[in-house]
Amino acid sequence: MSGGPVNIGLCGLGTVGQGVWKHLQGARAELGTRLGRPIVVKRIAVRSLTKARGVRVPASRLTTDALSVATDPQIPIVCELMGGTGIAREVTLAALRQGKAVISANKALICSHGAEIFAAARRHGGQFFFEASVAGGIPIIKALREGLVANRFPRIYGILNGTCNYILTQMEAQGAPYAQVLAEAKRLGYAEADEALDVEGWDTAHKAAILAWLAHGAWVNTRQMIVEGIDRLTPADLHNAATLGYRIKLLALITRDFDRNELSVRVHPTLLPVASVMAGVGGVFNAIAVSGDVVGTTLYTGRGAGQDATASAVISDIADAVSALSGGGAGRAAAAELPASPSRLRRSPPERIRCRYYLRLTVRDQPGVLARVASVMARHRVSIASVLQTPAERPGAASLVLTTHESDERSVGHALRVLGALKSVLERPLLLRIGDFAD
Amino acid sequence: MSGGPVNIGLCGLGTVGQGVWKHLQGARAELGTRLGRPIVVKRIAVRSLTKARGVRVPASRLTTDALSVATDPQIPIVCELMGGTGIAREVTLAALRQGKAVISANKALICSHGAEIFAAARRHGGQFFFEASVAGGIPIIKALREGLVANRFPRIYGILNGTCNYILTQMEAQGAPYAQVLAEAKRLGYAEADEALDVEGWDTAHKAAILAWLAHGAWVNTRQMIVEGIDRLTPADLHNAATLGYRIKLLALITRDFDRNELSVRVHPTLLPVASVMAGVGGVFNAIAVSGDVVGTTLYTGRGAGQDATASAVISDIADAVSALSGGGAGRAAAAELPASPSRLRRSPPERIRCRYYLRLTVRDQPGVLARVASVMARHRVSIASVLQTPAERPGAASLVLTTHESDERSVGHALRVLGALKSVLERPLLLRIGDFAD
Repeated sequence: MSGGPVNIGLCGLGTVGQGVWKHLQGARAELGTRLGRPIVVKRIAVRSLTKARGVRVPASRLTTDALSVATDPQIPIVCELMGGTGIAREVTLAALRQGKAVISANKALICSHGAEIFAAARRHGGQFFFEASVAGGIPIIKALREGLVANRFPRIYGILNGTCNYILTQMEAQGAPYAQVLAEAKRLGYAEADEALDVEGWDTAHKAAILAWLAHGAWVNTRQMIVEGIDRLTPADLHNAATLGYRIKLLALITRDFDRNELSVRVHPTLLPVASVMAGVGGVFNAIAVSGDVVGTTLYTGRGAGQDATASAVISDIADAVSALSGGGAGRAAAAELPASPSRLRRSPPERIRCRYYLRLTVRDQPGVLARVASVMARHRVSIASVLQTPAERPGAASLVLTTHESDERSVGHALRVLGALKSVLERPLLLRIGDFAD
Repeated sequence: MSGGPVNIGLCGLGTVGQGVWKHLQGARAELGTRLGRPIVVKRIAVRSLTKARGVRVPASRLTTDALSVATDPQIPIVCELMGGTGIAREVTLAALRQGKAVISANKALICSHGAEIFAAARRHGGQFFFEASVAGGIPIIKALREGLVANRFPRIYGILNGTCNYILTQMEAQGAPYAQVLAEAKRLGYAEADEALDVEGWDTAHKAAILAWLAHGAWVNTRQMIVEGIDRLTPADLHNAATLGYRIKLLALITRDFDRNELSVRVHPTLLPVASVMAGVGGVFNAIAVSGDVVGTTLYTGRGAGQDATASAVISDIADAVSALSGGGAGRAAAAELPASPSRLRRSPPERIRCRYYLRLTVRDQPGVLARVASVMARHRVSIASVLQTPAERPGAASLVLTTHESDERSVGHALRVLGALKSVLERPLLLRIGDFAD
């Protein structure tokens, strides 16, 4: 099983591309031994030929024409590391149409054009690998697709955005407000200049869509999901949660009811029991808990982003592509191995989503308010489990924190709308869900 | 990539074999779709044709001749699920010599005869898969070999024995003595009638040897390792550890110094910071933390044993073997992809193993004893960090618990021997290591 060198092309030499270049050089000897043949980075497409970079790359391999790398007949494996959904899509499709292997870390592209990309791979015998698109260096795509292939997945949930996890960890540790910790995260390079995609939950939603597709064969549009971010959380919420025995994490939750054939994909801050393994995953780390009907729950943690972790995932995909090439067609990215798109798979209706809830209201500090709130809850058959009242920051106001017994999204949603319209409720209520997962 | 049915043979229909049969039937449709061809269990070797079993298997497929299953020309994939190192070894070698794929959950066999088995696979073009041999349903073999292929591994450590983890978790939760919790574990089926292999650390050592071989390409004999079990731990040790901010776990530790080219593989109870993710992994669960030079640390948890978790791993190997068969030769179990056996890889000498230590001495409760103990430590240049003295169970005795600043195995070992010989030290001292891992 040894052979001549395998040429690969890199499209993009930004943070991730440089990481891949650097570690391919560093691990060259080991990889060559393990794969039975050396890997050669033949050509690299960049935006500027003259820009200074953190790695030294022979100028003769650089080009500004990414499509020419994707279609170079001497290059059977193409890494699309440019990002975006424009030229990245063209490069991906062009390479797949020539039956090549494409390796991608581009979750936005997969979410927007996954169906088209996988169809192209199937039609033209190409292969599409995307380990780096979810949870960085954690080999979760491989685990779901190969390691746990005997299983169906009633529940997958996890922390998929390191920026949010860093912010929440720091807010709890320092008791510091969201805006201050966000500014600090930007200074440290843990958050983008435009943080919206991360903190509002959309980045997590993109990754959740990819996991849902892998596990259930259905593309769920992020606009059909409940997607809530961390930007309305206060240190008081984290403190209240701790008092109740919980820690707040921004989670993606993918649950499937196989009897009803219903799928729910959502993203929201969730209170997790403080003793659970996932609650202990702090800082920029990601974590994913996968419940399989055969294996039970397995859980995976690691760095979810960054040059090196992402490069580790990309290189693992390159190795798989080389294996497939050498063996003449195995490689588990083959279209035949994707889950069959299930017929009549429906979105779970809100009344099926059941959990306990945490509700924070900023109310006028005057008699009768708690009674009014409690009666609204009762009218919607949402049963209150605990009440915590503290002075609010604004004068004359109180912060009312309620937890409920198990209820459902529809009832709680209705109650929330009525509460939000009460004159004695001064701000939009904050609703969080409690995840009583056993891990 | 679709084709005719693939025949597999099962050798052994005990707990694991029955699980594999059951879940292969349950997941038949899904697996067939994913793999592009159906899997058929063609023949099953059993010890008794008439024994009642928990699953219904057509009598026509049963045989008592395991070797005939292994060498049946219509069966390209053989699952060795008998256990032991006698007939299991013959079956494995016979199938590999015919260029077949063999799937094994048999860690004892791999440890005793791994070199012979892998040589046979290499020579005859066979493939050997063993995901189920370490950490049950956690796809750790695949992660090390494929998902993290870009990495070298300075440190791998983990909880690899669910029986020990269950016992320690219960001892801490109930404050109950070892013998009582062990008896309970036997009643619940979490411990074998003969518990020695588990509680003395040998089962963990077998798994550590397999992980070390996967990561470093060297077979380390368990007799060359430090192997210490949990059978000398008391509820007081767990309580003392908690007071110091730690939880005690039986760990396998595999550390490699790439500059010196030294490898250390050991098994012993270890104090882990209570806030670390691994310290939170309780009950029968396993956990493995893998530090890669590219990816950083990734961590994996899940059920380490049991019919279903083990079957999940075996079926994932079957799927890989079918993929390799269909593709004509990829599949990452191919001999060419094993790590090259590193030349001049040495065992780390004791003075290189450095950590902080926990030392419990049962001493005569009389003046001057602490001074004597402290002076022995000082003479061996082991610096004491904390002292905790409590009454011991036996009358006239005290329990002296010391922790040290960072020291090394050689110095501490010498000090321990001198302490053990003191007249005022009444029992063999207990030495535990403190693992200040950041996860």
